[in-house]
Amino acid sequence: MNRPMSSAPIPFTSDDYAARMARAVDDALAAGLDGVIVTPGPDLAWLTGYRPTAITERLTMLALAPDVQPTLLVPVLERPDAEAAEGAASVAIVDWVDGADPYESAARLLRHEGRFGISDSAWAMHLLGLQSTLPDTRYRASSQGLPMMRAIKDANELARLAMAGAAADATYGEIVNVRFAGRRETEVAADLDALLREFGHEQVDFTVVGSGPNGANPHHEAGDRVIEQGDAVVLDFGGLMHGYGSDTTRTVCVGEPSALVREVHEIVRRAQQTAFQAVRPGVPCQEVDRAARAVITDAGYGEAFIHRTGHGIGVTTHEPPYMVEGEEQPLRPGMCFSIEPGIYLAGRFGVRIEDIVTVTDTGGERFNNSDHGLHIVE
Amino acid sequence: MNRPMSSAPIPFTSDDYAARMARAVDDALAAGLDGVIVTPGPDLAWLTGYRPTAITERLTMLALAPDVQPTLLVPVLERPDAEAAEGAASVAIVDWVDGADPYESAARLLRHEGRFGISDSAWAMHLLGLQSTLPDTRYRASSQGLPMMRAIKDANELARLAMAGAAADATYGEIVNVRFAGRRETEVAADLDALLREFGHEQVDFTVVGSGPNGANPHHEAGDRVIEQGDAVVLDFGGLMHGYGSDTTRTVCVGEPSALVREVHEIVRRAQQTAFQAVRPGVPCQEVDRAARAVITDAGYGEAFIHRTGHGIGVTTHEPPYMVEGEEQPLRPGMCFSIEPGIYLAGRFGVRIEDIVTVTDTGGERFNNSDHGLHIVE
Repeated sequence: MNRPMSSAPIPFTSDDYAARMARAVDDALAAGLDGVIVTPGPDLAWLTGYRPTAITERLTMLALAPDVQPTLLVPVLERPDAEAAEGAASVAIVDWVDGADPYESAARLLRHEGRFGISDSAWAMHLLGLQSTLPDTRYRASSQGLPMMRAIKDANELARLAMAGAAADATYGEIVNVRFAGRRETEVAADLDALLREFGHEQVDFTVVGSGPNGANPHHEAGDRVIEQGDAVVLDFGGLMHGYGSDTTRTVCVGEPSALVREVHEIVRRAQQTAFQAVRPGVPCQEVDRAARAVITDAGYGEAFIHRTGHGIGVTTHEPPYMVEGEEQPLRPGMCFSIEPGIYLAGRFGVRIEDIVTVTDTGGERFNNSDHGLHIVE
Repeated sequence: MNRPMSSAPIPFTSDDYAARMARAVDDALAAGLDGVIVTPGPDLAWLTGYRPTAITERLTMLALAPDVQPTLLVPVLERPDAEAAEGAASVAIVDWVDGADPYESAARLLRHEGRFGISDSAWAMHLLGLQSTLPDTRYRASSQGLPMMRAIKDANELARLAMAGAAADATYGEIVNVRFAGRRETEVAADLDALLREFGHEQVDFTVVGSGPNGANPHHEAGDRVIEQGDAVVLDFGGLMHGYGSDTTRTVCVGEPSALVREVHEIVRRAQQTAFQAVRPGVPCQEVDRAARAVITDAGYGEAFIHRTGHGIGVTTHEPPYMVEGEEQPLRPGMCFSIEPGIYLAGRFGVRIEDIVTVTDTGGERFNNSDHGLHIVE
């Protein structure tokens, strides 16, 4: 097996995390907020390196505000995990015990009558708990705050995304050699899982194998269907490597493709390439979507492209910015996202091609470089 | 390998789901609410059978209110999945497209100036979106509503939980025969994963292997540590089978245990048994916690039992009711939860023993029945 470069990335330091938290505070102040509340998920991982084992009803939150040390409130039994996080040296950790009111503890970390950003994915029960304990404090979703700050990657982050992309490409390079015909989708999905780990992923997030009609449902994962000769098969897989995401899609055909599969595949290939060529600093996100959509619509399949063209990627495999109509945010150097147009013919088959792309000073660069051609598998 | 009974459970019908939704509405009205908003997660799975592939920033919500058909709002690209859900026949499905404002669509499903329960784990960004679009509508976390309704299982659900428990026991019966000494925790974790699937789980949620000092961190999963002779090893594993959860813990020892490991294990075993004996209808949840805690405290290890005694289980492996100080809710027949006391000696080892238990008309019954003794592995 050809292994991609597996050299370890440069470790993040506690200074790196401290700098991110300081920027988050500055950004919040500039947005008219008094601070930020960050609950488990990508924002917290990016700011502190802390990724709790599970996100539960037990409140965990990082409070960021000017002139005070960043403070992480955790359930006491998760304290050892929090203390082991890469950025733990840059935060004060306080805990609460089962049976106590965590919102009372949280209230001590927030300015009453203040205005705070809060993580998009914070649980409603926690937001309602804070709203009840601090009725004069106001909250705003961080959608356009922290996630957009994270959206622009530094050199270390770009290196990690490139490594993850290379590992996903290596996975594709191997999966086309396995047997498809006569095996269940779930078996091929297990092969993808094993390959991603083999090539260095510490976490596999999805291994979509959509064969024949299942490929026409863009959210199908992998099922019991036995793959048949002639099937188009959508392979969409990714996960985390060194804490950063991969996500790539190729559509293969089992044996000789029909004329229709060839035609649809070629349209999607052109749409993907056209969207990629639209990438450069200053272009609004929606233009990337429009570029892909125009190709597919002109070819007569506009109704069959039923999702947006892409999503950001970083400490998760799916995050802002979104390449979607209505997103006028301009692309900026260091942003990383998927370009993944598709055509879905209900009851028949689907085709999708996806690369992760980063914005450079002058255009775009792909982190996935495996062949876009319609590969024939056995 | 001895396989547990693998007969399929009785399918849920769309009438079953309709009845659950009707009960949810009645319960909401009785609680002074005008309806319930349910976002992806266990409440939605229980009410409709719908488990979206991923929970994302795209709004999916079920609106339940009196005298109207239950309506599920979904992103258009997830419509096929929603339509394929077991309970789909009992709901109207409406969709929204990328680029549109989903809260406008949601507002059409809610009584303005009404009061609604909302899923605990609904995203804060969605709650804030609803609060902004419908400023005169009030929300309350469903913590004590839907989750407590789900907490009491019917016969079909109990049968599924029993099957999942038997499969977890069969997994334990096999794992004690694998090699521990000289292998990494992650390798034993992979064995647990494979066994759970072998015995019928469609989803594995966790495979904790906490060897030696790692066992003293109750939230440790499995790492690169090589298991050594003399290690106590906490094995905590579970997932979903036929949509219902398993979760069991046993602590084994690699070779001859020290006197301290034996002593601590025996205390935890007695604590687990004592808590189990406290289970009967009408007993407040916190009494189950107190029963376990008293044994451990009396033995001088009270400070080393750093988490609550248990959590509910059903369509997820971790949900209300919680067996914790301050939870005065009475146990009722059909409730199912874990009893999992532990002792954690930092830097040395941990011991935990966990069974899933259901409340019968007269006491408790275990869904895990593998031996509680300190098993010696190689």
